[in-house]
Amino acid sequence: MTDRQPDKDPRIGKRDDNAVQFPRLRCVALCGGVGGAKLAVGLEAQLSPANLTVITNTGDDFTHLGLHISPDLDTVMYSLAGLANRETGWGRDGESWRFMSALAALGGEDWFQLGDLDLATHIERSRRLAAGESLSAITQALAGRLGVRPAIVPMCDAPVRTIVDTPDGPLAFQHYFVRDKCARPVTGFRFAGADTAQPASSARAALADPALDAIIICPSNPFVSIDPILAVPGMREAIARAHAPVIAVSPIVRGQAIKGPTAKMMRELGVPGEAVAIADHYGDLLDGFILDAADRALADRIEDRGLACLVTDTVMTGQEEKVELARAVLQFVQQLQQKAT
Amino acid sequence: MTDRQPDKDPRIGKRDDNAVQFPRLRCVALCGGVGGAKLAVGLEAQLSPANLTVITNTGDDFTHLGLHISPDLDTVMYSLAGLANRETGWGRDGESWRFMSALAALGGEDWFQLGDLDLATHIERSRRLAAGESLSAITQALAGRLGVRPAIVPMCDAPVRTIVDTPDGPLAFQHYFVRDKCARPVTGFRFAGADTAQPASSARAALADPALDAIIICPSNPFVSIDPILAVPGMREAIARAHAPVIAVSPIVRGQAIKGPTAKMMRELGVPGEAVAIADHYGDLLDGFILDAADRALADRIEDRGLACLVTDTVMTGQEEKVELARAVLQFVQQLQQKAT
Repeated sequence: MTDRQPDKDPRIGKRDDNAVQFPRLRCVALCGGVGGAKLAVGLEAQLSPANLTVITNTGDDFTHLGLHISPDLDTVMYSLAGLANRETGWGRDGESWRFMSALAALGGEDWFQLGDLDLATHIERSRRLAAGESLSAITQALAGRLGVRPAIVPMCDAPVRTIVDTPDGPLAFQHYFVRDKCARPVTGFRFAGADTAQPASSARAALADPALDAIIICPSNPFVSIDPILAVPGMREAIARAHAPVIAVSPIVRGQAIKGPTAKMMRELGVPGEAVAIADHYGDLLDGFILDAADRALADRIEDRGLACLVTDTVMTGQEEKVELARAVLQFVQQLQQKAT
Repeated sequence: MTDRQPDKDPRIGKRDDNAVQFPRLRCVALCGGVGGAKLAVGLEAQLSPANLTVITNTGDDFTHLGLHISPDLDTVMYSLAGLANRETGWGRDGESWRFMSALAALGGEDWFQLGDLDLATHIERSRRLAAGESLSAITQALAGRLGVRPAIVPMCDAPVRTIVDTPDGPLAFQHYFVRDKCARPVTGFRFAGADTAQPASSARAALADPALDAIIICPSNPFVSIDPILAVPGMREAIARAHAPVIAVSPIVRGQAIKGPTAKMMRELGVPGEAVAIADHYGDLLDGFILDAADRALADRIEDRGLACLVTDTVMTGQEEKVELARAVLQFVQQLQQKAT
């Protein structure tokens, strides 16, 4: 899920390979849009590029104006390419909106903003999908063109669509999220098409890699960013079977989401609005949980659940914080590995 | 056919309805891209808007990047909306190319230039076609949005595609014209799909209108702009049956085309490279033919063919020349009407 609020991040230059502090660790990150992409950027700075696979939510994908749009894949791709728009939190840096204004003048649908640069991604992806290429292959090709080095992998190649249930009936995710600005209370979520989907083969391969050191659930919305990934048949089992600890970073700090409607959804679903509820949400999938320093008081309750707990600063306001959080996560991974041996 | 060479036209402001000099004449124009669109603009200045129907070539249409592109419909629409790009001769005034550069960076096909503003037309048209609307209905809606008042009508709603035969084999029209810049000699033309197409219903209605005063074949390329229109079954008959004289304006002046490959095609096809050959090309469809003043010496040969002949300035370098040519054409129509009564 890609939120549409501003990111205060100053633009940082090229990656410095000499600064990689965990050149041997091999990780899979599960993520949605903005929050997850930020941690992916931090992890990319700390790992060898070949050692990071980012399995990304595609439940937000939809067809709009005849184009296949993959909001989270794009946010992750633009973020890892250093091209993300920090003002909007979605789309590309230095974007322009001439197409959009011409479309509005023609009476076209303009509730979903598509920038002139961003449009190239949607048109090229749609063209290649129509030509029979898989979403995985297209994502790899486009990301490669933009200089992205970690593997960005859609959770699956088949279409899975998040449906938001509300008291007024079901809504397609982007209608709920962008068009209606999360106005309606949610009563639940469904992932249409998930029952017949299967994990993208490179997602499966990354999770089955015996050399894998960690699976990191990024601080993304559990309901509409991570749950769609886990809803793909075989994904949860592949994660549970992996020879690596599974660690989640809480997207909730002091009972609030850093971005987006996570806390609002928790209230509406009757889930306690605190980080512990996120740990409970993922349940026995987890080996470790990372709390923000502001939620230090919750650490005992995390450990009571049999989980290793790390307390650290998790709010990623800039590049430095992303890299710092990634470092803390990876040190936590190493601690868990030492404990296990 | 929409040529891609510059137009020296100064931009002219809004239409002045008081300047309409032939408020009662009702005309159908047949046209392709740039040259035809210029005369259409002139006719629009001289006629009541409801009295002009522009039947436009769609043999140039093609699917590119998954989008339905109608180059001639767009040139006519942008010209009549006062939005045409005079620098390029195609596309929109004040255009930008950010989508195109982003697409090239992603490795997409960039031989056919699509501006950021222009793209809105293609995306909205493609979306509506996919939703089941006819090309006629979409053209009417988009042109209406842009403030166009005459009726712009595609020759047919079904796809007809001009194929250019060359010694190296057949080429799709835009591959011949834009991608390969007319490099190959032509040996002939075919209009794939024409055999099962039928004239758009509003084209049929305009031609069958008993109050119709003239059918004007604009100075467009006869082979790839007008012939596709005439290749639609029933179109030639509807023109011949109409209660109105058919007048062609020569696209050839001093043996040269004002724009585009007409003269080159005539040489390659072994057709004499002069205006008379255009009259012969349309044959008994014509009642009158308009020669440029520079070709005054050919007038006798036109009249020898039993055609009324007008000699006037036909080169439309600016708005004034478009309006002047339209005035001359419409006076010629009135002369033919008087002769007939």
